[in-house]
Amino acid sequence: MNSPQLSLSRRLRKSPFETRSHVGATSASVYNHVVLPTVYESLEADYWHLREHVQIWDVACQVQVEVRGPDALKFVEFLTPRDVSKCVPGQCIYAPLLDEHAGVVNDPIILCLSTDRYWLSISDSDVLLWAKGLAVGGGFDVEVHDPDVFPLSLQGPKSETLLSRLIAEPVEDIRFFRFIHTRIDGIDLVVARTGWSGQGGFELYLSKATEGERLWDIVVEAGADLNLRSGCPNLIDRIETGLLSHGNDVTLANNPIESGLNRFFKMGKTADYLGKQALEKIVAEGTAQQFVRLVFSGDPIANPREYYPLSVSGTAELGQVTSVIYSPRLGHNVGLGYVPASATAVGTSVTLSLPSGTVSGNIADKDWHTEPTQ
Amino acid sequence: MNSPQLSLSRRLRKSPFETRSHVGATSASVYNHVVLPTVYESLEADYWHLREHVQIWDVACQVQVEVRGPDALKFVEFLTPRDVSKCVPGQCIYAPLLDEHAGVVNDPIILCLSTDRYWLSISDSDVLLWAKGLAVGGGFDVEVHDPDVFPLSLQGPKSETLLSRLIAEPVEDIRFFRFIHTRIDGIDLVVARTGWSGQGGFELYLSKATEGERLWDIVVEAGADLNLRSGCPNLIDRIETGLLSHGNDVTLANNPIESGLNRFFKMGKTADYLGKQALEKIVAEGTAQQFVRLVFSGDPIANPREYYPLSVSGTAELGQVTSVIYSPRLGHNVGLGYVPASATAVGTSVTLSLPSGTVSGNIADKDWHTEPTQ
Repeated sequence: MNSPQLSLSRRLRKSPFETRSHVGATSASVYNHVVLPTVYESLEADYWHLREHVQIWDVACQVQVEVRGPDALKFVEFLTPRDVSKCVPGQCIYAPLLDEHAGVVNDPIILCLSTDRYWLSISDSDVLLWAKGLAVGGGFDVEVHDPDVFPLSLQGPKSETLLSRLIAEPVEDIRFFRFIHTRIDGIDLVVARTGWSGQGGFELYLSKATEGERLWDIVVEAGADLNLRSGCPNLIDRIETGLLSHGNDVTLANNPIESGLNRFFKMGKTADYLGKQALEKIVAEGTAQQFVRLVFSGDPIANPREYYPLSVSGTAELGQVTSVIYSPRLGHNVGLGYVPASATAVGTSVTLSLPSGTVSGNIADKDWHTEPTQ
Repeated sequence: MNSPQLSLSRRLRKSPFETRSHVGATSASVYNHVVLPTVYESLEADYWHLREHVQIWDVACQVQVEVRGPDALKFVEFLTPRDVSKCVPGQCIYAPLLDEHAGVVNDPIILCLSTDRYWLSISDSDVLLWAKGLAVGGGFDVEVHDPDVFPLSLQGPKSETLLSRLIAEPVEDIRFFRFIHTRIDGIDLVVARTGWSGQGGFELYLSKATEGERLWDIVVEAGADLNLRSGCPNLIDRIETGLLSHGNDVTLANNPIESGLNRFFKMGKTADYLGKQALEKIVAEGTAQQFVRLVFSGDPIANPREYYPLSVSGTAELGQVTSVIYSPRLGHNVGLGYVPASATAVGTSVTLSLPSGTVSGNIADKDWHTEPTQ
């Protein structure tokens, strides 16, 4: 069955880069009501290029939600179990947002612009409405709005060389998950050392949409001898890197404990937050399932349209695979998913049920090894 | 520039009908995180077929948000200026949802299942998060959740004949914007006389996703001699019918007065609702712009990716066209958009600025006539 072509309308918000970024994109999806290219040459060719060179990504779909006002910190604290009070201006933190049942509403990167002004750089759900609803309903003294900011991402090992040609500041001084205010040829930007790949890179937050095409062209020209080309978040790279995709690997039905997102925060922060009671209960009682990495040998497995069920050695409970792809570098399939909490040991045998039959695999560690260490 | 193919993942929620509905779809979009086919044969061929026969539409993207509990009516009232208290079980009402500034968050059809249980059949924004945020923040005693209900639509002049072959109840007894609980071959359904076309039809709300393919096949078989085929909301038909598309013709930046949505409600309802003060102020002060229909002669105009600016005779203020398409039946372009409130008279000359040049047109009445009646 052929996939249909993506049709555009005003309802899908226009990226300021799209006259450039859509050229050569063979597949795309929609993310936060914005078109997100998903493949250029092929998943595999894009993957190898990303690991070796530098790519320019149109990630305008990483929509910003701005929270500002006297209660800004208090309100952002209310949205997440992560301690936001320690986040200083110029810092980014990854922070799951929870609902009243401790379900994961979204997992943005929060940028602290000042202690009364934050951007939530969101994954694919309408955090603007969520946060507005909570703020209005709860009487917080904040303004929650969409500031019309459009990120462009430079990812890959040559991204530092590329960026150093574009900004006046020393790029090596921008630490991981920190950002600076700078400009490229007069275009004001926030530039952060972040990005949705395992290959390192930067995200450039553009406020003036009318400068989008000029910015793109300047970057492309500066990267000509670095073998720069258009790219996008790459499914192989992101699964290998273990980056969770909200909507795929974690949803409102998941809590951050079972999803392993609790490695990004400590329980017991002082400030009040939504879902606190529910989350403390989950921690006290333990979770029924746990997020793990998985490897499967054999033929390439297609990424699931729905969860694939997984039987796990030593338990009658089923797990599920939420993302899976063949890694041409590792020579086997790499997957992400949930297994019963009683059977999470590295090396545990699993059997994946695909529409086409079953495939054997094992629980892996974060380096995709399936031999228990020590 | 070719459009990329739509790539699927678990993040885009699976319609229970998609193994059927995606066959033959040449273009599609994403709506509420669900794939929505937008073209089968061609916009024009789909249009003529819809006007003459009956089509089966996968509108699983019309996601339901269920509100239930002791405060259900009070809370749904809080979401909209429309008086929900008069809505009886078995009735659907079209109701804009407002934010605190009277901006339109969404424009669902609300189905009253009982006075403590409502479905909001939504357009393309995460009303689940909006309503949950407001309910949690405001302390309403309701549960707001996604009940996993998937609508299938039968639209076109033969839809009544088709439905009468499928359900035991007399179809003619289902009044416009009313629904019944029924079953087709044992499959429980809510069936409403509603739908996003001007040709009449029904929406079938399926709760049991695993029955989706069987339901589709039963309907297709029953419609074989009626020239039934797969279809989707048709851009020509919906603009001709004057159906507003949230995200295209009305957004959070619009209020329901300027968008003309106030024809669906009366100001002054007793119950409290969000945005009441802002809306009353807008009514008292008048709006700067007003939603109108427009006609343009000449070559077919492509539907805008961004708003097209519009200059309007008799005023220096600009308007904008939010949707436009060539009507093969009327022999000219039909458009929707906003003009300055001082210049809304039918017949008023307008000039549309397209990337390719300017086009002349006129403000039209609801039958697309540009001669002022009196």
